[in-house]
Amino acid sequence: MDDMIGRGGDRESVLQAAKTLREEVRAGRWRKRTTGMARGIVQGNLVILPAENAEDFQKFCERNPKPCPLIGMTEPGDPSVPALGDDIDLRTDLSGYRIFEHGTATREVHDISDYWQDDFVGFVLGCSYSFEEALMQDGLTMRHIENGTKAYVYLTNVPTKPAGPFRGPTIVSMRPFTPPDAIRAIEITSRFPDVHGAPIHFGDPSMIGIDDILDPYSGPPPEIRPGEVPVFWACGVTPQAVMEEAKLPFAITHNPGHMLITDRLNAEFSTA
Amino acid sequence: MDDMIGRGGDRESVLQAAKTLREEVRAGRWRKRTTGMARGIVQGNLVILPAENAEDFQKFCERNPKPCPLIGMTEPGDPSVPALGDDIDLRTDLSGYRIFEHGTATREVHDISDYWQDDFVGFVLGCSYSFEEALMQDGLTMRHIENGTKAYVYLTNVPTKPAGPFRGPTIVSMRPFTPPDAIRAIEITSRFPDVHGAPIHFGDPSMIGIDDILDPYSGPPPEIRPGEVPVFWACGVTPQAVMEEAKLPFAITHNPGHMLITDRLNAEFSTA
Repeated sequence: MDDMIGRGGDRESVLQAAKTLREEVRAGRWRKRTTGMARGIVQGNLVILPAENAEDFQKFCERNPKPCPLIGMTEPGDPSVPALGDDIDLRTDLSGYRIFEHGTATREVHDISDYWQDDFVGFVLGCSYSFEEALMQDGLTMRHIENGTKAYVYLTNVPTKPAGPFRGPTIVSMRPFTPPDAIRAIEITSRFPDVHGAPIHFGDPSMIGIDDILDPYSGPPPEIRPGEVPVFWACGVTPQAVMEEAKLPFAITHNPGHMLITDRLNAEFSTA
Repeated sequence: MDDMIGRGGDRESVLQAAKTLREEVRAGRWRKRTTGMARGIVQGNLVILPAENAEDFQKFCERNPKPCPLIGMTEPGDPSVPALGDDIDLRTDLSGYRIFEHGTATREVHDISDYWQDDFVGFVLGCSYSFEEALMQDGLTMRHIENGTKAYVYLTNVPTKPAGPFRGPTIVSMRPFTPPDAIRAIEITSRFPDVHGAPIHFGDPSMIGIDDILDPYSGPPPEIRPGEVPVFWACGVTPQAVMEEAKLPFAITHNPGHMLITDRLNAEFSTA
């Protein structure tokens, strides 16, 4: 297990931990979430669609770079993503997938080899794990990590910019910070445009359509301490709400927390 | 007057407007504030001290880069600042100065040639005008500019880090923004570390010791609209509160709003 978490450090050992974890996932021996694993490595959100919808979804990502920062894309029918790693196979390399049929998540599986079609196109989107690592390196503490829980995730009333059948509300992850820490977190995440970038809101949750901050869409009720304000980042789960709206006959996403382990370093994604 | 405001545009015309304005100030023909003039040009806050205090004050600036971003410094007795412009003379080139005696501002003058001493050292500090220009270029509207008033300036309970006799509270300028605009403003100003950088606080004013947001230390009562939060940046007036604490027998600062016009472009001060 330590081998797959990685100890950070030099580039080689970071990449080795990623490779080991990806091999374990591919072999079906690691089926849990990849949160906190392969430290230093970019993890990705996944969307797989038929080729006929690919152009629209690519446009959708371009129009909504904060929730959908596109960092890799496959050729039709080809499950490899050379831009993100030499040996990536999107059919086997995530520890959990969700199958969507006509807009409903019907199954959660650990391998999609049996579902793969010749016209499938895979999209890999940046993930907040990358900027969370940068925040921790700066000494900021995130409550959900401190408390060992899933992230606090909310549905908002902030619409995405539609493209073809793809539309829907922005989903956000929330991290509570004191104002000085929030300012620091904004500074840092603004340097990571490919992994959601700066937040989209802070403070009053009702301004983005969140009626009850203690009742997330996903994750436990958050602990927000006196003097802290909630800060909201666009989240890579947004495409899953978009799949529900688009109602394609068939689509696949990652199962939240079960991300694609790439061979790219978080450090490469900083613009600073 | 138009010649001294400048129209932005190419480097040459921006520098020419600065030169024209500085010449008018030097000749005693322009004695008003320089706010909004010589667009595109870095304006600076000023502190002048005897050489025996210079090392401590330099340390003070290094320890407090947000309120006191040091962008230029003179040799003892030499009123020129070659780093900021070929012909700058700190004795004549600001349209207003404040004389401090034993910690009290005793006079406001337009020329300090008669006060200059052989052991004086001048410190020029970055000024928020530079980042305000960058905010405006990004399409953000600042209320005090929109309303044509002075900036909203407050005394806080956030201590500066002392050096020698120099200590005291941080002074801040406040700009109200909606949360998305505040996030954008934080992103942009974080790229200008030499002109105060990112804010030090937003939201609840009482957290930094401001009891009544409608009662600034300087400037009119602010207009904060529904949905806006106050955002607070460290301010170059801080050294004047520090002079009050340090109680040096003699010191000189700029008169707020009456800044040093340099030959440096704001664009040069962006780290982006």
